[in-house]
Amino acid sequence: MTQEKVLCDIGFIGLGVMGKNLVLNLADNGYNIAAFDLNHEKVTDTIEQDRLENKTDSPRVYGCFSYTELLSQLKAPHLIVLSVPAGEPVDQVCESLIGAGIQPDDIIIDTGNSLWVDTVEREKRYKSQFLLFSSAVSGGEVGARFGPALMPSGTPYAWTRIKPIWEAISAKVDPATGKPIERTEPGEVIEYGDPCAAYIGPAGAGHYVKMVHNGIEYADMQIICEAYQVLREGLGMSCDEIADTFEKWNQGPLDSYLMEISVEVLRHKLDDETPLVDVILDKAGQKGTGLWTAVSSLEVGCPAPTISQAVYARSISSFKSARVTASELLEGPDSKEYTEEEKQTFITRLHDAIYCAKICAYAQGFQLMKLAAKEHNWELDFSSIAKIWRAGCIIRAVFLQSITEAFNRDENLENLLLDEFFAKQLNLHQSNWRQAIADITLMGIPAGALTSALSYYDSMRSGVLPANLLQGQRDFFGAHTFERTDKATGKKYHVEWSSKGRPMVSM
Amino acid sequence: MTQEKVLCDIGFIGLGVMGKNLVLNLADNGYNIAAFDLNHEKVTDTIEQDRLENKTDSPRVYGCFSYTELLSQLKAPHLIVLSVPAGEPVDQVCESLIGAGIQPDDIIIDTGNSLWVDTVEREKRYKSQFLLFSSAVSGGEVGARFGPALMPSGTPYAWTRIKPIWEAISAKVDPATGKPIERTEPGEVIEYGDPCAAYIGPAGAGHYVKMVHNGIEYADMQIICEAYQVLREGLGMSCDEIADTFEKWNQGPLDSYLMEISVEVLRHKLDDETPLVDVILDKAGQKGTGLWTAVSSLEVGCPAPTISQAVYARSISSFKSARVTASELLEGPDSKEYTEEEKQTFITRLHDAIYCAKICAYAQGFQLMKLAAKEHNWELDFSSIAKIWRAGCIIRAVFLQSITEAFNRDENLENLLLDEFFAKQLNLHQSNWRQAIADITLMGIPAGALTSALSYYDSMRSGVLPANLLQGQRDFFGAHTFERTDKATGKKYHVEWSSKGRPMVSM
Repeated sequence: MTQEKVLCDIGFIGLGVMGKNLVLNLADNGYNIAAFDLNHEKVTDTIEQDRLENKTDSPRVYGCFSYTELLSQLKAPHLIVLSVPAGEPVDQVCESLIGAGIQPDDIIIDTGNSLWVDTVEREKRYKSQFLLFSSAVSGGEVGARFGPALMPSGTPYAWTRIKPIWEAISAKVDPATGKPIERTEPGEVIEYGDPCAAYIGPAGAGHYVKMVHNGIEYADMQIICEAYQVLREGLGMSCDEIADTFEKWNQGPLDSYLMEISVEVLRHKLDDETPLVDVILDKAGQKGTGLWTAVSSLEVGCPAPTISQAVYARSISSFKSARVTASELLEGPDSKEYTEEEKQTFITRLHDAIYCAKICAYAQGFQLMKLAAKEHNWELDFSSIAKIWRAGCIIRAVFLQSITEAFNRDENLENLLLDEFFAKQLNLHQSNWRQAIADITLMGIPAGALTSALSYYDSMRSGVLPANLLQGQRDFFGAHTFERTDKATGKKYHVEWSSKGRPMVSM
Repeated sequence: MTQEKVLCDIGFIGLGVMGKNLVLNLADNGYNIAAFDLNHEKVTDTIEQDRLENKTDSPRVYGCFSYTELLSQLKAPHLIVLSVPAGEPVDQVCESLIGAGIQPDDIIIDTGNSLWVDTVEREKRYKSQFLLFSSAVSGGEVGARFGPALMPSGTPYAWTRIKPIWEAISAKVDPATGKPIERTEPGEVIEYGDPCAAYIGPAGAGHYVKMVHNGIEYADMQIICEAYQVLREGLGMSCDEIADTFEKWNQGPLDSYLMEISVEVLRHKLDDETPLVDVILDKAGQKGTGLWTAVSSLEVGCPAPTISQAVYARSISSFKSARVTASELLEGPDSKEYTEEEKQTFITRLHDAIYCAKICAYAQGFQLMKLAAKEHNWELDFSSIAKIWRAGCIIRAVFLQSITEAFNRDENLENLLLDEFFAKQLNLHQSNWRQAIADITLMGIPAGALTSALSYYDSMRSGVLPANLLQGQRDFFGAHTFERTDKATGKKYHVEWSSKGRPMVSM
């Protein structure tokens, strides 16, 4: 392939699966790309892929083999997109670009899974040398290729330059239905619909929001997995029967990308017709964002038990050999036969349990963003965030339309559970949910996400929690004092507990 | 009070409730103390308290009003104990002591609630100026006065100097019964029994272990509080009836300090006979150690859902006004009347639920220490740690004797659930536990700690978890690959999922 000297619109660094697909997506949308990777094979590979997919007459991707060459191929002021692993590699690239002569008015957009606090630090550190912008990208490799959900953040000035590009390559939602507009062919471009890209806020905000997206994704996936295990082991259903059930559920309020792909995974067979899932090792990997979400929830004081349970479920899965030993040692209930009617009743209840648990997981995620925003002085637009997530990303679902509407009704909504629509849904289904959890408990099947969501629901609707006794205990052993409901707010009380030998303490 | 020039054994800085009581404890054990606080009133107050409690003929506590004066009052090499708030204040004191002329061979023992990583950093930072040793102290103010559980860590050399003092002031356990030896009177000294003080490991290890102690304490307290709420609201029992039940439970395997003080809190009445807990505001405070434990469990990949649930329970409690609003909006089950017989059956089951949940909470805490020790190259002696906790600290309980024995049987025990004694207990009680959780779920009473423990139990005894489906989902959207149970370990597989428009990926 010959490469003529044409100045490109965008520089791109990091041509892994995500990077290559983003490059092709940008190219489909009419941008010329100067592409670089430390691994030169990946550069050649990307050019080759572009040649295969390019429906136009002129080349769209120009390979570069050094940072200097990359800069020389770009229009000024330079716009460079990074798709490199989070952490050290981002800084290495930034330093290399500084060495290659990047200018203060140039923009570097980090699209990796950076930890949001690193982004905040980095923006400050490089301020005088270039503009660091960051944009989380959700939707995996298919999203990157045909339209991801984008969560950009950084200085508003940079955003004005990035906006048209980001809106072009992002996933689109049909405003009439709230559903994704499918784009599946190389060369295809969608020029209508609501783009799944909107400015989130200052540096770090976009990655924070993406982090919470992933935390919710963990919960969403775990909820589906728990339903699968309950149907498989509790009710003895086959993978195909479970896929049928999930397919039916995918027509209603549970309609989502994750439910859809679960159907396909469950239907996948080996050559001898064994379901693939039966031979997939049950040790789940994790890349950190779910864990960071859980950690952040603890740090900002936001109850997010369902998200944490999903993270813990992955870590428990990794202790395979201890589990196998324990399975011989520790007893559960006797297994029970269910009549067809009982099965159907249970399946209906389980559906409602999933729906309600899902509402709670999203409620936790949105409250977490709200509390973090308060702490960091970000003005997050939650209606817009829910809108972005309607297509392109892993948790895309019709359901998000309802969240957008909830925040449209009240932009200061403290918790989704307090919204009239969601409250109504929960009230309609809580009884079935409850019954399903009781049944699952008696079946002996673990379902930490589904059950923690119900505890969360029951805690949130408890005007009085037993924290009164807890405060009494704390005052007893640590003189931590307590407030009284029958006295003025803020006034602290302490009891001279009678315990023998207790030293007198004056408060 | 006249102060003669006598060189003291120990310097003490920070005379809050904990500090003052530690000083008096040291004094009872025959040590002379030079005591300092930035707040001079606290110095005077401590001297006055010592005068009241001193049963000997000579003064034991000497007041100091500057760091220089403090050093001049001490035998060399100096031994100085700090009891100041964690964080900045510790460094301020260290810097001030450097200014006052502290020597490289002097020891400063930090007894505050420092975050363990800060301790590690601090030890390195001050290495050439003095020896920083740290010792977590558990047992609240009463423990500090009459015998705390002590978790010392730092250089072994410093420990040789500190050991006799620490063993003297610590709580003691009767080796025959495994129960604490009571010490309740000023002047009293216990010179027999197993001291609740043993060297834990290098800098940071002691505070880490204390942090996990507190995480377990959070879970323990929350479990008791959930039982209280279930009995109060589910069964409609009065505070006195609940106290009676707890008192009975406190005779069996649930025998513990926390159960004991809960009885006293529940029995406490206002002048008009209203139970005090009925007017204590149900917003629980927290000082961070429980939260740090939960964060650490996520970071090291140790499932600790029951500890996290206890932390979240405190944060949910703080959203009082949202809860009150939600309590009007969100529905639960209709309340049910129970016959006396049903009540008794339920109470028996609830007892077993508490016992099993408690085993799981401790299993989580001990596994967390094990995984952290591996990460940080600490050689923790878990039998010894459980032994230290048998007296003096907040979670002291007969139960810890069983943990000591489990680690004596197998010092490499991966998880308490795999120990023969605990497995037997769980097998005996799992059915009642399960039934109790099902009942509580149907009652609509939140019990995140009790229920998460059961999910944990059921996960741990699942030879196969639904992480197989989860790995399938991850491979679908992110090409994360999976291992197969029917193929060699470590080999990664990827499916070319059929989804329309999916780019081909070579793995």
